[in-house]
Amino acid sequence: MEGCKSVEELLRSPFDVRWVAADEVALARWRAQNLRLPAETVAATRDQLADAGSYQTNDGAIAIAAMKPARLPEAPDGITLVLDDIRDPGNLGTLIRTADWYGVTTIVASATTADFYSPKTIQASMGSFTRVSVYYTELALFLAAQRVPVYGTFLEGENVQTFRPASRCMVVIGNEANGISDAVACTVTTRITIPRFGAAESLNAAIAAAVVLDNFKRLQ
Amino acid sequence: MEGCKSVEELLRSPFDVRWVAADEVALARWRAQNLRLPAETVAATRDQLADAGSYQTNDGAIAIAAMKPARLPEAPDGITLVLDDIRDPGNLGTLIRTADWYGVTTIVASATTADFYSPKTIQASMGSFTRVSVYYTELALFLAAQRVPVYGTFLEGENVQTFRPASRCMVVIGNEANGISDAVACTVTTRITIPRFGAAESLNAAIAAAVVLDNFKRLQ
Repeated sequence: MEGCKSVEELLRSPFDVRWVAADEVALARWRAQNLRLPAETVAATRDQLADAGSYQTNDGAIAIAAMKPARLPEAPDGITLVLDDIRDPGNLGTLIRTADWYGVTTIVASATTADFYSPKTIQASMGSFTRVSVYYTELALFLAAQRVPVYGTFLEGENVQTFRPASRCMVVIGNEANGISDAVACTVTTRITIPRFGAAESLNAAIAAAVVLDNFKRLQ
Repeated sequence: MEGCKSVEELLRSPFDVRWVAADEVALARWRAQNLRLPAETVAATRDQLADAGSYQTNDGAIAIAAMKPARLPEAPDGITLVLDDIRDPGNLGTLIRTADWYGVTTIVASATTADFYSPKTIQASMGSFTRVSVYYTELALFLAAQRVPVYGTFLEGENVQTFRPASRCMVVIGNEANGISDAVACTVTTRITIPRFGAAESLNAAIAAAVVLDNFKRLQ
């Protein structure tokens, strides 16, 4: 993890943090806040941090933590967000942040979806990576085994502004360019659509997810 | 403009297109569709297009068009989206695309907002740059002169899911890190908020705009 905000979120999270390098200002602040720092914590300048990390500049911290074990829950509670081939790590990070805002903590993604641990994903998630889990699996198989409704976003379907969703369900968001793949579309039990009032051909994937979640939380 | 999709949208739009370079496939398709090509239209290979443009690869076209004259309407109709210091051109492009989906064709932005004509803005707008106009001005002065409600998104305010907005209004979206500036906040007549169900600190600026517009179009 790189950057003060991400590292601080990491220190507050259940992640197992193994190593921290940070500037004296950040270290002093975290010690004053009684945050638990690992045994291997070292002071470093911002230039040293930028040299060690992948960002062009670093605002004060880098950390190493163990990845979370990825044991997919068999039947997750509430709304589960399902990502079919979201390629852009920035989009994935924004989806994680949006899910976290709406209280969705489980995301199931196709193996072709961007990497949860990519620095761009972590950065765009704005700290929400500590509260939302992303599980990678074969989506069509996973969805076919579910006993809850599987809602998919399409250009035609039930109006998301008036449709009454189940409280326990899956919401599938498709690839940025091609939407939901045929294999996954077969497992969708209800097609939903976001009403269009203008002329754009489609919405960005994270925007579509946010609008669906906002309506679902209101209507559930 | 770079890229087949953007150039094709440009050719279909009221923009004054002065020059087009494209590969034979794209040119043949546009001629078959009776799209009006400028006198200065030249055939080029994709490698030549990539050399001439700013993209690393080019999928078939580059065009030059005259910028639109930016005469800010005194009292725009319907919903006007107001951007207070949106710095990221990708965010601006996504905001333009989202506005277009919801039928919002006028965006008023602070001078510090990202450039409408940046290649990243154009690309993220996915063609919507031809239908949505962005006017740059001194926001606090512009908003103070409006006779319609000015709604601003804050972490506390009227619930956007139940609030009844005016049909003619301004919706202000703030900077990615700092939100709405103090000078602009003074001109906001009603603070609105997107209900949070989880733990994220905030939403991405384009996500917030989409959720507000989706609720406003439903409730107006």
